[in-house]
Amino acid sequence: MATDFTEETATDAVIESFHATPEPRLKEVLTSLTQHLHAFVRDVRPTHSEWEQAIEFLTETGQKCDDVRQEFILLSDVLGVSMLVETINERETPGATSATVLGPFHVVDSPPRALGDTIDLIGTGHPCVVTGRVLSQDGSPLPGAVVDVWQGNEKGFYDVQQPGIQPLGNGRGLFTTDERGAFWFRTVVPSYYPIQTDGPVGRMLERTGRHPNRPAHIHFIVGAEGHAPVTTHVFVKDSPYIENDTVFAVKESLIADFVHTDDPDLAREHGVRNPFAHAQVDIVLESVSDMRPA
Amino acid sequence: MATDFTEETATDAVIESFHATPEPRLKEVLTSLTQHLHAFVRDVRPTHSEWEQAIEFLTETGQKCDDVRQEFILLSDVLGVSMLVETINERETPGATSATVLGPFHVVDSPPRALGDTIDLIGTGHPCVVTGRVLSQDGSPLPGAVVDVWQGNEKGFYDVQQPGIQPLGNGRGLFTTDERGAFWFRTVVPSYYPIQTDGPVGRMLERTGRHPNRPAHIHFIVGAEGHAPVTTHVFVKDSPYIENDTVFAVKESLIADFVHTDDPDLAREHGVRNPFAHAQVDIVLESVSDMRPA
Repeated sequence: MATDFTEETATDAVIESFHATPEPRLKEVLTSLTQHLHAFVRDVRPTHSEWEQAIEFLTETGQKCDDVRQEFILLSDVLGVSMLVETINERETPGATSATVLGPFHVVDSPPRALGDTIDLIGTGHPCVVTGRVLSQDGSPLPGAVVDVWQGNEKGFYDVQQPGIQPLGNGRGLFTTDERGAFWFRTVVPSYYPIQTDGPVGRMLERTGRHPNRPAHIHFIVGAEGHAPVTTHVFVKDSPYIENDTVFAVKESLIADFVHTDDPDLAREHGVRNPFAHAQVDIVLESVSDMRPA
Repeated sequence: MATDFTEETATDAVIESFHATPEPRLKEVLTSLTQHLHAFVRDVRPTHSEWEQAIEFLTETGQKCDDVRQEFILLSDVLGVSMLVETINERETPGATSATVLGPFHVVDSPPRALGDTIDLIGTGHPCVVTGRVLSQDGSPLPGAVVDVWQGNEKGFYDVQQPGIQPLGNGRGLFTTDERGAFWFRTVVPSYYPIQTDGPVGRMLERTGRHPNRPAHIHFIVGAEGHAPVTTHVFVKDSPYIENDTVFAVKESLIADFVHTDDPDLAREHGVRNPFAHAQVDIVLESVSDMRPA
Protein backbone atom coordinates (compact mmCIF):
# COMPACT_ATOMS: atom_id res chain seq x y z
CA MET A 1 0.00 0.00 0.00
CA ALA A 2 2.84 2.37 -0.75
CA THR A 3 0.65 3.91 -3.43
CA ASP A 4 -1.36 7.00 -2.63
CA PHE A 5 -4.96 6.67 -1.53
CA THR A 6 -7.18 8.00 -4.35
CA GLU A 7 -10.91 8.42 -4.81
CA GLU A 8 -10.82 5.28 -6.99
CA THR A 9 -8.72 3.05 -4.70
CA ALA A 10 -10.04 4.25 -1.34
CA THR A 11 -12.84 1.74 -0.86
CA ASP A 12 -10.76 -1.29 -1.83
CA ALA A 13 -7.94 -0.18 0.48
CA VAL A 14 -10.26 0.05 3.47
CA ILE A 15 -12.00 -3.24 2.69
CA GLU A 16 -8.59 -4.88 2.34
CA SER A 17 -7.67 -3.62 5.83
CA PHE A 18 -10.47 -5.82 7.21
CA HIS A 19 -9.23 -8.97 5.42
CA ALA A 20 -8.04 -10.70 8.60
CA THR A 21 -11.29 -10.25 10.56
CA PRO A 22 -11.88 -13.59 12.30
CA GLU A 23 -15.71 -13.39 12.51
CA PRO A 24 -17.18 -13.76 9.02
CA ARG A 25 -20.34 -11.79 9.88
CA LEU A 26 -18.37 -8.83 11.25
CA LYS A 27 -16.23 -8.82 8.11
CA GLU A 28 -19.36 -8.89 5.95
CA VAL A 29 -20.97 -6.00 7.85
CA LEU A 30 -17.83 -3.82 7.81
CA THR A 31 -17.20 -4.51 4.13
CA SER A 32 -20.74 -3.45 3.28
CA LEU A 33 -20.54 -0.44 5.62
CA THR A 34 -17.35 0.71 3.92
CA GLN A 35 -18.88 0.36 0.45
CA HIS A 36 -22.08 2.22 1.29
CA LEU A 37 -20.42 4.88 3.46
CA HIS A 38 -17.82 5.65 0.79
CA ALA A 39 -20.53 5.68 -1.90
CA PHE A 40 -22.42 8.26 0.21
CA VAL A 41 -19.28 10.40 0.58
CA ARG A 42 -18.47 10.20 -3.15
CA ASP A 43 -22.09 11.07 -3.90
CA VAL A 44 -22.43 14.19 -1.71
CA ARG A 45 -18.75 15.25 -1.90
CA PRO A 46 -18.72 16.97 1.51
CA THR A 47 -16.58 20.02 2.12
CA HIS A 48 -14.28 19.96 5.14
CA SER A 49 -16.75 22.13 6.98
CA GLU A 50 -19.62 19.76 6.21
CA TRP A 51 -17.53 16.79 7.38
CA GLU A 52 -16.81 18.67 10.61
CA GLN A 53 -20.51 19.36 11.06
CA ALA A 54 -21.25 15.65 10.60
CA ILE A 55 -18.62 14.71 13.21
CA GLU A 56 -20.10 17.27 15.58
CA PHE A 57 -23.66 16.05 14.96
CA LEU A 58 -22.73 12.43 15.70
CA THR A 59 -20.72 13.45 18.78
CA GLU A 60 -23.61 15.49 20.18
CA THR A 61 -26.00 12.64 19.45
CA GLY A 62 -23.86 10.28 21.53
CA GLN A 63 -23.39 12.80 24.30
CA LYS A 64 -27.12 13.47 24.56
CA CYS A 65 -27.58 9.83 25.63
CA ASP A 66 -27.83 8.83 29.28
CA ASP A 67 -29.65 6.21 31.36
CA VAL A 68 -33.04 7.49 30.29
CA ARG A 69 -32.33 9.12 26.93
CA GLN A 70 -31.29 7.38 23.73
CA GLU A 71 -30.68 9.93 20.98
CA PHE A 72 -29.14 7.42 18.52
CA ILE A 73 -32.35 5.35 18.65
CA LEU A 74 -34.24 8.57 17.91
CA LEU A 75 -31.95 9.21 14.96
CA SER A 76 -32.42 5.66 13.70
CA ASP A 77 -36.18 6.14 14.15
CA VAL A 78 -36.56 9.41 12.23
CA LEU A 79 -34.38 8.11 9.38
CA GLY A 80 -36.68 5.10 9.04
CA VAL A 81 -33.83 2.72 9.90
CA SER A 82 -35.48 1.26 13.01
CA MET A 83 -38.66 0.51 11.07
CA LEU A 84 -36.66 -0.93 8.16
CA VAL A 85 -34.87 -3.29 10.56
CA GLU A 86 -38.26 -4.30 12.01
CA THR A 87 -39.64 -4.92 8.55
CA ILE A 88 -36.62 -6.98 7.48
CA ASN A 89 -36.85 -9.14 10.59
CA GLU A 90 -40.59 -9.61 10.47
CA ARG A 91 -41.73 -13.13 9.79
CA GLU A 92 -44.78 -13.02 7.62
CA THR A 93 -46.90 -15.41 9.58
CA PRO A 94 -50.55 -15.08 8.61
CA GLY A 95 -52.52 -13.68 11.53
CA ALA A 96 -49.57 -12.99 13.83
CA THR A 97 -49.40 -9.49 15.33
CA SER A 98 -47.05 -7.22 13.42
CA ALA A 99 -43.99 -5.73 15.04
CA THR A 100 -43.08 -2.08 15.16
CA VAL A 101 -40.25 0.00 16.62
CA LEU A 102 -39.07 -0.35 20.22
CA GLY A 103 -38.63 3.40 20.61
CA PRO A 104 -36.31 5.10 23.10
CA PHE A 105 -38.46 4.87 26.25
CA HIS A 106 -38.08 1.23 27.25
CA VAL A 107 -35.22 2.34 29.47
CA VAL A 108 -36.51 1.27 32.88
CA ASP A 109 -38.09 -2.02 33.89
CA SER A 110 -41.86 -2.08 34.00
CA PRO A 111 -43.11 -2.87 37.53
CA PRO A 112 -44.95 -6.20 37.83
CA ARG A 113 -48.67 -5.56 38.40
CA ALA A 114 -51.76 -7.70 39.00
CA LEU A 115 -54.40 -8.02 36.31
CA GLY A 116 -56.84 -5.14 36.59
CA ASP A 117 -54.33 -2.84 38.26
CA THR A 118 -53.92 0.65 36.95
CA ILE A 119 -50.67 1.84 35.39
CA ASP A 120 -51.87 5.43 35.85
CA LEU A 121 -50.42 6.66 39.14
CA ILE A 122 -51.68 10.25 38.74
CA GLY A 123 -55.34 10.16 37.74
CA THR A 124 -55.70 13.32 35.70
CA GLY A 125 -56.25 11.83 32.23
CA HIS A 126 -59.26 10.34 30.48
CA PRO A 127 -59.84 6.90 32.00
CA CYS A 128 -59.21 3.93 29.78
CA VAL A 129 -59.62 0.20 30.12
CA VAL A 130 -57.50 -2.10 27.98
CA THR A 131 -58.64 -5.70 27.71
CA GLY A 132 -57.12 -8.35 25.53
CA ARG A 133 -55.91 -11.86 25.04
CA VAL A 134 -52.63 -13.40 24.02
CA LEU A 135 -53.20 -16.17 21.48
CA SER A 136 -51.14 -18.59 19.51
CA GLN A 137 -51.53 -18.33 15.77
CA ASP A 138 -53.93 -21.28 15.79
CA GLY A 139 -56.24 -19.30 18.05
CA SER A 140 -55.47 -21.14 21.29
CA PRO A 141 -55.10 -18.88 24.35
CA LEU A 142 -51.69 -18.52 25.97
CA PRO A 143 -51.92 -18.53 29.79
CA GLY A 144 -48.86 -17.22 31.61
CA ALA A 145 -47.85 -14.95 28.73
CA VAL A 146 -45.93 -11.87 29.83
CA VAL A 147 -47.32 -8.51 28.67
CA ASP A 148 -44.96 -5.56 29.12
CA VAL A 149 -46.71 -2.23 28.48
CA TRP A 150 -45.49 1.37 28.60
CA GLN A 151 -47.01 4.61 27.45
CA GLY A 152 -46.89 8.37 27.80
CA ASN A 153 -49.50 10.19 29.83
CA GLU A 154 -52.41 12.30 28.60
CA LYS A 155 -50.02 15.18 27.96
CA GLY A 156 -47.68 13.01 25.90
CA PHE A 157 -44.84 12.56 28.39
CA TYR A 158 -43.28 9.35 29.65
CA ASP A 159 -42.36 9.02 33.31
CA VAL A 160 -38.61 9.26 32.63
CA GLN A 161 -39.13 12.60 30.90
CA GLN A 162 -40.72 14.18 33.98
CA PRO A 163 -38.75 13.26 37.08
CA GLY A 164 -40.38 14.88 40.09
CA ILE A 165 -43.68 15.27 38.23
CA GLN A 166 -44.41 11.63 37.37
CA PRO A 167 -43.32 8.83 39.69
CA LEU A 168 -41.05 6.32 37.96
CA GLY A 169 -43.21 3.46 36.74
CA ASN A 170 -46.14 5.67 35.82
CA GLY A 171 -47.58 4.39 32.55
CA ARG A 172 -45.69 1.10 32.87
CA GLY A 173 -46.74 -2.38 33.90
CA LEU A 174 -45.72 -5.99 33.53
CA PHE A 175 -48.78 -8.28 33.46
CA THR A 176 -49.19 -12.04 33.20
CA THR A 177 -52.18 -13.49 31.36
CA ASP A 178 -54.69 -15.64 33.28
CA GLU A 179 -55.73 -19.19 32.47
CA ARG A 180 -57.83 -17.90 29.53
CA GLY A 181 -54.82 -16.03 28.07
CA ALA A 182 -56.53 -12.79 29.06
CA PHE A 183 -55.03 -9.57 30.42
CA TRP A 184 -56.65 -6.30 31.43
CA PHE A 185 -55.48 -3.11 33.03
CA ARG A 186 -56.54 0.45 33.67
CA THR A 187 -54.75 3.50 32.32
CA VAL A 188 -55.42 6.85 30.68
CA VAL A 189 -55.84 7.42 26.96
CA PRO A 190 -52.36 8.36 25.75
CA SER A 191 -51.78 11.51 23.74
CA TYR A 192 -49.88 12.04 20.52
CA TYR A 193 -46.57 13.68 21.36
CA PRO A 194 -43.41 15.11 19.86
CA ILE A 195 -40.29 13.01 20.11
CA GLN A 196 -37.63 14.65 22.28
CA THR A 197 -36.64 17.75 20.33
CA ASP A 198 -34.05 19.29 22.66
CA GLY A 199 -31.16 17.48 21.00
CA PRO A 200 -29.44 17.13 17.64
CA VAL A 201 -32.25 14.99 16.18
CA GLY A 202 -34.81 17.64 17.09
CA ARG A 203 -32.66 20.31 15.45
CA MET A 204 -32.44 18.16 12.32
CA LEU A 205 -36.23 17.89 12.16
CA GLU A 206 -36.55 21.64 12.63
CA ARG A 207 -34.04 22.43 9.88
CA THR A 208 -35.81 20.05 7.51
CA GLY A 209 -39.31 21.38 8.18
CA ARG A 210 -40.42 18.02 9.57
CA HIS A 211 -42.93 17.86 12.41
CA PRO A 212 -41.64 15.82 15.38
CA ASN A 213 -44.90 14.11 16.29
CA ARG A 214 -45.98 10.55 16.88
CA PRO A 215 -49.63 9.49 16.95
CA ALA A 216 -50.97 8.28 20.32
CA HIS A 217 -50.04 4.69 21.15
CA ILE A 218 -49.34 2.16 23.89
CA HIS A 219 -46.14 0.07 23.62
CA PHE A 220 -46.26 -3.70 24.06
CA ILE A 221 -43.65 -6.43 24.29
CA VAL A 222 -45.42 -9.76 24.58
CA GLY A 223 -43.79 -13.13 25.10
CA ALA A 224 -45.00 -16.65 25.85
CA GLU A 225 -43.32 -20.01 26.16
CA GLY A 226 -42.78 -21.75 22.85
CA HIS A 227 -43.55 -18.55 20.91
CA ALA A 228 -41.58 -15.74 19.28
CA PRO A 229 -41.96 -12.52 21.28
CA VAL A 230 -43.30 -9.43 19.57
CA THR A 231 -42.38 -5.76 20.14
CA THR A 232 -45.21 -3.57 18.93
CA HIS A 233 -47.57 -0.64 19.55
CA VAL A 234 -51.33 -0.29 19.67
CA PHE A 235 -52.21 3.02 18.02
CA VAL A 236 -55.24 5.11 18.95
CA LYS A 237 -57.54 5.32 15.94
CA ASP A 238 -58.12 8.88 14.69
CA SER A 239 -55.18 10.26 16.67
CA PRO A 240 -53.49 13.27 15.08
CA TYR A 241 -50.46 12.19 13.03
CA ILE A 242 -51.79 8.65 12.54
CA GLU A 243 -51.03 9.11 8.84
CA ASN A 244 -47.59 10.69 9.17
CA ASP A 245 -45.84 9.34 12.25
CA THR A 246 -42.39 10.96 12.32
CA VAL A 247 -40.79 7.55 12.99
CA PHE A 248 -42.80 5.68 10.28
CA ALA A 249 -44.06 3.07 12.77
CA VAL A 250 -47.80 2.92 12.04
CA LYS A 251 -49.27 -0.20 10.51
CA GLU A 252 -52.97 -0.41 9.69
CA SER A 253 -53.25 -3.68 11.57
CA LEU A 254 -51.98 -2.05 14.77
CA ILE A 255 -54.65 0.67 14.96
CA ALA A 256 -57.31 0.02 17.61
CA ASP A 257 -60.57 1.76 18.33
CA PHE A 258 -60.51 3.27 21.82
CA VAL A 259 -64.31 3.10 22.13
CA HIS A 260 -66.06 5.88 24.04
CA THR A 261 -68.04 4.04 26.70
CA ASP A 262 -70.71 5.64 28.85
CA ASP A 263 -71.84 2.84 31.18
CA PRO A 264 -71.74 3.54 34.93
CA ASP A 265 -72.12 -0.15 35.82
CA LEU A 266 -69.29 -1.25 33.58
CA ALA A 267 -67.18 1.67 34.84
CA ARG A 268 -67.81 0.55 38.42
CA GLU A 269 -66.95 -3.03 37.52
CA HIS A 270 -63.61 -1.93 36.04
CA GLY A 271 -62.96 0.60 38.79
CA VAL A 272 -62.74 3.65 36.53
CA ARG A 273 -64.63 6.93 36.32
CA ASN A 274 -67.48 7.05 33.83
CA PRO A 275 -67.33 7.73 30.90
CA PHE A 276 -64.19 5.91 29.80
CA ALA A 277 -62.48 4.57 26.71
CA HIS A 278 -62.25 0.85 26.08
CA ALA A 279 -59.71 -0.78 23.79
CA GLN A 280 -59.70 -4.47 22.99
CA VAL A 281 -56.21 -5.69 22.05
CA ASP A 282 -55.57 -9.26 20.94
CA ILE A 283 -51.95 -10.23 20.45
CA VAL A 284 -51.23 -13.26 18.29
CA LEU A 285 -47.81 -14.90 18.62
CA GLU A 286 -46.08 -17.23 16.23
CA SER A 287 -45.29 -20.61 17.78
CA VAL A 288 -41.61 -21.44 17.69
CA SER A 289 -42.11 -24.80 16.00
CA ASP A 290 -43.51 -22.88 13.02
CA MET A 291 -40.59 -20.46 12.90
CA ARG A 292 -38.48 -20.50 9.82
CA PRO A 293 -34.78 -20.64 10.56
CA ALA A 294 -33.51 -17.14 11.29
CA MET B 1 -48.88 7.68 4.13
CA ALA B 2 -51.67 5.55 5.58
CA THR B 3 -50.10 2.57 3.84
CA ASP B 4 -47.74 0.35 5.78
CA PHE B 5 -44.01 0.94 5.60
CA THR B 6 -42.47 -1.94 3.63
CA GLU B 7 -38.94 -2.82 2.61
CA GLU B 8 -39.78 -1.53 -0.86
CA THR B 9 -41.44 1.76 0.14
CA ALA B 10 -39.26 2.63 3.13
CA THR B 11 -36.63 4.73 1.39
CA ASP B 12 -39.10 6.80 -0.62
CA ALA B 13 -41.20 7.43 2.50
CA VAL B 14 -38.22 8.80 4.42
CA ILE B 15 -36.97 10.89 1.49
CA GLU B 16 -40.48 12.29 1.09
CA SER B 17 -40.41 13.36 4.75
CA PHE B 18 -37.55 15.72 3.88
CA HIS B 19 -39.42 17.35 0.97
CA ALA B 20 -39.95 20.68 2.74
CA THR B 21 -36.29 21.18 3.75
CA PRO B 22 -35.57 24.88 3.04
CA GLU B 23 -31.80 24.51 2.40
CA PRO B 24 -31.25 22.66 -0.89
CA ARG B 25 -27.83 21.33 0.16
CA LEU B 26 -29.19 19.87 3.41
CA LYS B 27 -32.02 18.23 1.48
CA GLU B 28 -29.51 16.78 -0.99
CA VAL B 29 -27.28 15.39 1.77
CA LEU B 30 -30.15 13.84 3.75
CA THR B 31 -31.70 12.34 0.63
CA SER B 32 -28.41 10.71 -0.27
CA LEU B 33 -27.80 9.62 3.33
CA THR B 34 -31.21 7.95 3.44
CA GLN B 35 -30.59 6.13 0.17
CA HIS B 36 -27.15 4.84 1.12
CA LEU B 37 -28.01 4.06 4.75
CA HIS B 38 -31.11 2.10 3.73
CA ALA B 39 -29.14 0.30 1.01
CA PHE B 40 -26.62 -0.72 3.68
CA VAL B 41 -29.40 -2.01 5.96
CA ARG B 42 -31.10 -3.92 3.13
CA ASP B 43 -27.71 -5.35 2.18
CA VAL B 44 -26.60 -6.66 5.60
CA ARG B 45 -30.13 -7.34 6.96
CA PRO B 46 -29.18 -6.76 10.61
CA THR B 47 -30.90 -8.72 13.36
CA HIS B 48 -32.40 -6.76 16.23
CA SER B 49 -29.40 -7.66 18.33
CA GLU B 50 -26.98 -6.39 15.68
CA TRP B 51 -28.95 -3.15 15.38
CA GLU B 52 -28.74 -2.76 19.17
CA GLN B 53 -24.98 -3.34 19.02
CA ALA B 54 -24.67 -0.66 16.35
CA ILE B 55 -26.68 1.82 18.48
CA GLU B 56 -24.47 0.99 21.44
CA PHE B 57 -21.26 1.35 19.41
CA LEU B 58 -22.27 4.79 18.12
CA THR B 59 -23.39 5.88 21.59
CA GLU B 60 -20.11 4.82 23.16
CA THR B 61 -18.18 6.53 20.38
CA GLY B 62 -19.94 9.81 21.16
CA GLN B 63 -19.54 9.39 24.89
CA LYS B 64 -15.81 8.72 24.58
CA CYS B 65 -15.39 12.25 23.20
CA ASP B 66 -14.38 15.16 25.40
CA ASP B 67 -12.35 18.35 25.09
CA VAL B 68 -9.20 16.44 24.17
CA ARG B 69 -10.55 13.24 22.67
CA GLN B 70 -12.46 12.87 19.41
CA GLU B 71 -13.50 9.27 18.88
CA PHE B 72 -15.77 10.01 15.88
CA ILE B 73 -12.80 11.52 14.02
CA LEU B 74 -10.88 8.32 14.85
CA LEU B 75 -13.76 6.28 13.46
CA SER B 76 -13.89 8.40 10.31
CA ASP B 77 -10.11 7.99 10.04
CA VAL B 78 -9.94 4.19 10.34
CA LEU B 79 -12.83 3.78 7.88
CA GLY B 80 -10.93 5.86 5.32
CA VAL B 81 -13.66 8.50 5.31
CA SER B 82 -11.44 11.36 6.50
CA MET B 83 -8.89 10.59 3.78
CA LEU B 84 -11.64 10.24 1.17
CA VAL B 85 -12.98 13.68 2.11
CA GLU B 86 -9.43 15.08 1.86
CA THR B 87 -8.98 13.48 -1.54
CA ILE B 88 -12.32 14.76 -2.84
CA ASN B 89 -11.52 18.30 -1.72
CA GLU B 90 -7.98 18.32 -2.98
CA ARG B 91 -7.35 20.67 -5.82
CA GLU B 92 -4.90 19.14 -8.19
CA THR B 93 -2.59 22.06 -8.53
CA PRO B 94 0.75 21.01 -9.97
CA GLY B 95 3.42 21.41 -7.34
CA ALA B 96 1.17 22.39 -4.46
CA THR B 97 1.65 20.42 -1.23
CA SER B 98 -0.89 17.63 -0.84
CA ALA B 99 -3.32 17.57 2.02
CA THR B 100 -3.87 14.74 4.44
CA VAL B 101 -6.10 14.11 7.45
CA LEU B 102 -6.41 16.55 10.34
CA GLY B 103 -6.44 13.76 12.92
CA PRO B 104 -7.95 13.99 16.40
CA PHE B 105 -5.16 15.85 18.22
CA HIS B 106 -5.60 19.41 16.97
CA VAL B 107 -7.76 19.98 20.04
CA VAL B 108 -5.81 22.73 21.77
CA ASP B 109 -4.32 25.90 20.30
CA SER B 110 -0.66 25.76 19.43
CA PRO B 111 1.31 28.35 21.42
CA PRO B 112 2.88 31.11 19.30
CA ARG B 113 6.67 30.67 19.22
CA ALA B 114 9.61 32.55 17.70
CA LEU B 115 11.52 31.07 14.79
CA GLY B 116 14.20 28.73 16.09
CA ASP B 117 12.34 27.99 19.32
CA THR B 118 11.94 24.42 20.41
CA ILE B 119 8.55 22.77 20.65
CA ASP B 120 10.13 20.04 22.81
CA LEU B 121 9.61 21.06 26.42
CA ILE B 122 11.03 17.83 27.88
CA GLY B 123 14.34 17.07 26.20
CA THR B 124 14.48 13.29 26.31
CA GLY B 125 14.05 12.45 22.63
CA HIS B 126 16.43 12.44 19.68
CA PRO B 127 17.05 16.07 18.75
CA CYS B 128 15.67 17.25 15.46
CA VAL B 129 15.81 20.46 13.47
CA VAL B 130 13.06 21.21 10.97
CA THR B 131 13.79 23.91 8.42
CA GLY B 132 11.59 24.90 5.56
CA ARG B 133 9.99 27.53 3.43
CA VAL B 134 6.45 28.44 2.51
CA LEU B 135 6.17 29.16 -1.17
CA SER B 136 3.50 30.12 -3.63
CA GLN B 137 3.05 27.72 -6.50
CA ASP B 138 5.12 29.98 -8.78
CA GLY B 139 8.06 29.53 -6.40
CA SER B 140 7.90 32.94 -4.76
CA PRO B 141 8.45 32.91 -0.99
CA LEU B 142 5.56 33.78 1.31
CA PRO B 143 6.68 35.99 4.22
CA GLY B 144 4.25 36.18 7.15
CA ALA B 145 2.80 32.74 6.45
CA VAL B 146 1.47 31.00 9.55
CA VAL B 147 2.84 27.52 10.24
CA ASP B 148 0.91 25.53 12.86
CA VAL B 149 2.73 22.33 13.87
CA TRP B 150 1.88 19.57 16.32
CA GLN B 151 3.38 16.16 16.94
CA GLY B 152 3.66 13.32 19.42
CA ASN B 153 6.84 12.84 21.42
CA GLU B 154 9.55 10.21 20.98
CA LYS B 155 7.31 7.65 22.72
CA GLY B 156 4.38 8.37 20.41
CA PHE B 157 2.19 10.40 22.78
CA TYR B 158 0.69 13.84 22.28
CA ASP B 159 0.62 16.30 25.17
CA VAL B 160 -3.14 15.96 25.68
CA GLN B 161 -2.74 12.22 26.15
CA GLN B 162 -0.35 12.61 29.06
CA PRO B 163 -1.61 15.30 31.43
CA GLY B 164 0.81 15.60 34.32
CA ILE B 165 3.59 14.00 32.31
CA GLN B 166 3.79 16.39 29.35
CA PRO B 167 3.05 20.09 29.82
CA LEU B 168 0.23 21.27 27.57
CA GLY B 169 1.79 22.74 24.45
CA ASN B 170 4.60 20.21 24.29
CA GLY B 171 5.11 19.26 20.67
CA ARG B 172 3.07 22.25 19.47
CA GLY B 173 4.02 25.60 18.01
CA LEU B 174 2.64 28.40 15.89
CA PHE B 175 5.37 30.00 13.76
CA THR B 176 5.40 32.88 11.30
CA THR B 177 7.73 32.80 8.31
CA ASP B 178 10.40 35.47 7.96
CA GLU B 179 10.93 37.82 5.01
CA ARG B 180 12.38 34.95 2.96
CA GLY B 181 9.30 32.77 3.63
CA ALA B 182 11.46 30.58 5.88
CA PHE B 183 10.61 28.88 9.15
CA TRP B 184 12.68 26.70 11.45
CA PHE B 185 12.21 25.11 14.81
CA ARG B 186 13.70 22.51 17.12
CA THR B 187 11.92 19.38 18.24
CA VAL B 188 12.47 15.65 18.74
CA VAL B 189 12.05 13.01 16.06
CA PRO B 190 8.48 11.77 16.49
CA SER B 191 7.73 8.08 16.90
CA TYR B 192 5.16 5.92 15.14
CA TYR B 193 2.27 5.31 17.53
CA PRO B 194 -1.01 3.50 17.95
CA ILE B 195 -4.15 5.55 17.67
CA GLN B 196 -6.08 5.67 20.95
CA THR B 197 -7.25 2.09 21.44
CA ASP B 198 -9.08 2.38 24.78
CA GLY B 199 -12.42 3.11 23.13
CA PRO B 200 -14.92 1.56 20.72
CA VAL B 201 -12.72 2.27 17.69
CA GLY B 202 -9.81 0.44 19.30
CA ARG B 203 -12.07 -2.50 20.07
CA MET B 204 -13.19 -2.56 16.44
CA LEU B 205 -9.58 -2.70 15.25
CA GLU B 206 -8.86 -5.52 17.70
CA ARG B 207 -11.89 -7.54 16.62
CA THR B 208 -10.93 -7.12 12.96
CA GLY B 209 -7.27 -8.08 13.40
CA ARG B 210 -6.13 -4.61 12.30
CA HIS B 211 -3.03 -3.03 13.82
CA PRO B 212 -3.73 0.44 15.27
CA ASN B 213 -0.49 2.13 14.22
CA ARG B 214 0.39 5.28 12.38
CA PRO B 215 3.86 5.94 10.92
CA ALA B 216 5.86 8.77 12.54
CA HIS B 217 4.85 12.24 11.37
CA ILE B 218 4.58 15.92 12.19
CA HIS B 219 1.26 17.68 11.54
CA PHE B 220 1.14 20.99 9.70
CA ILE B 221 -1.56 23.52 8.92
CA VAL B 222 -0.07 26.27 6.79
CA GLY B 223 -1.82 29.43 5.65
CA ALA B 224 -0.78 32.62 3.90
CA GLU B 225 -2.61 35.64 2.61
CA GLY B 226 -4.07 35.15 -0.84
CA HIS B 227 -3.51 31.41 -0.70
CA ALA B 228 -5.55 28.30 0.11
CA PRO B 229 -4.44 26.84 3.45
CA VAL B 230 -3.27 23.24 3.59
CA THR B 231 -3.70 20.66 6.36
CA THR B 232 -1.05 18.00 6.01
CA HIS B 233 1.62 15.82 7.61
CA VAL B 234 5.32 15.34 7.02
CA PHE B 235 6.07 11.63 7.43
CA VAL B 236 9.39 10.27 8.63
CA LYS B 237 10.94 8.19 5.85
CA ASP B 238 11.50 4.53 6.79
CA SER B 239 9.23 4.77 9.84
CA PRO B 240 7.50 1.52 10.72
CA TYR B 241 3.97 1.42 9.23
CA ILE B 242 4.84 3.92 6.48
CA GLU B 243 3.29 1.44 4.05
CA ASN B 244 0.16 0.59 6.05
CA ASP B 245 -0.94 3.60 8.08
CA THR B 246 -4.12 2.57 9.89
CA VAL B 247 -5.79 5.83 8.83
CA PHE B 248 -4.64 5.65 5.17
CA ALA B 249 -3.05 9.11 5.30
CA VAL B 250 0.39 8.55 3.75
CA LYS B 251 1.19 10.09 0.39
CA GLU B 252 4.57 9.53 -1.25
CA SER B 253 5.00 13.27 -1.74
CA LEU B 254 4.66 13.88 2.01
CA ILE B 255 7.52 11.60 3.08
CA ALA B 256 10.66 13.48 4.14
CA ASP B 257 14.13 12.28 4.93
CA PHE B 258 15.03 13.08 8.54
CA VAL B 259 18.74 13.16 7.76
CA HIS B 260 21.13 11.89 10.44
CA THR B 261 23.51 14.79 10.99
CA ASP B 262 26.75 14.55 12.94
CA ASP B 263 28.14 18.08 12.87
CA PRO B 264 29.01 19.71 16.22
CA ASP B 265 29.28 23.19 14.68
CA LEU B 266 25.89 22.97 13.01
CA ALA B 267 24.38 21.47 16.16
CA ARG B 268 25.74 24.43 18.17
CA GLU B 269 24.39 26.87 15.60
CA HIS B 270 20.90 25.34 15.88
CA GLY B 271 21.13 24.92 19.64
CA VAL B 272 20.67 21.14 19.69
CA ARG B 273 22.72 18.23 20.97
CA ASN B 274 24.93 16.50 18.41
CA PRO B 275 24.12 14.25 16.55
CA PHE B 276 20.67 15.32 15.42
CA ALA B 277 18.19 14.73 12.63
CA HIS B 278 17.49 17.40 10.05
CA ALA B 279 14.35 17.58 7.94
CA GLN B 280 13.82 20.09 5.19
CA VAL B 281 10.13 20.78 4.58
CA ASP B 282 8.92 23.08 1.84
CA ILE B 283 5.24 23.81 1.74
CA VAL B 284 3.77 25.07 -1.52
CA LEU B 285 0.41 26.83 -1.40
CA GLU B 286 -2.02 27.46 -4.19
CA SER B 287 -2.73 31.13 -4.75
CA VAL B 288 -6.39 32.00 -4.42
CA SER B 289 -6.58 33.72 -7.79
CA ASP B 290 -5.76 30.31 -9.32
CA MET B 291 -8.39 28.47 -7.35
CA ARG B 292 -11.16 26.85 -9.29
CA PRO B 293 -14.61 27.63 -7.93
CA ALA B 294 -15.38 25.25 -5.07
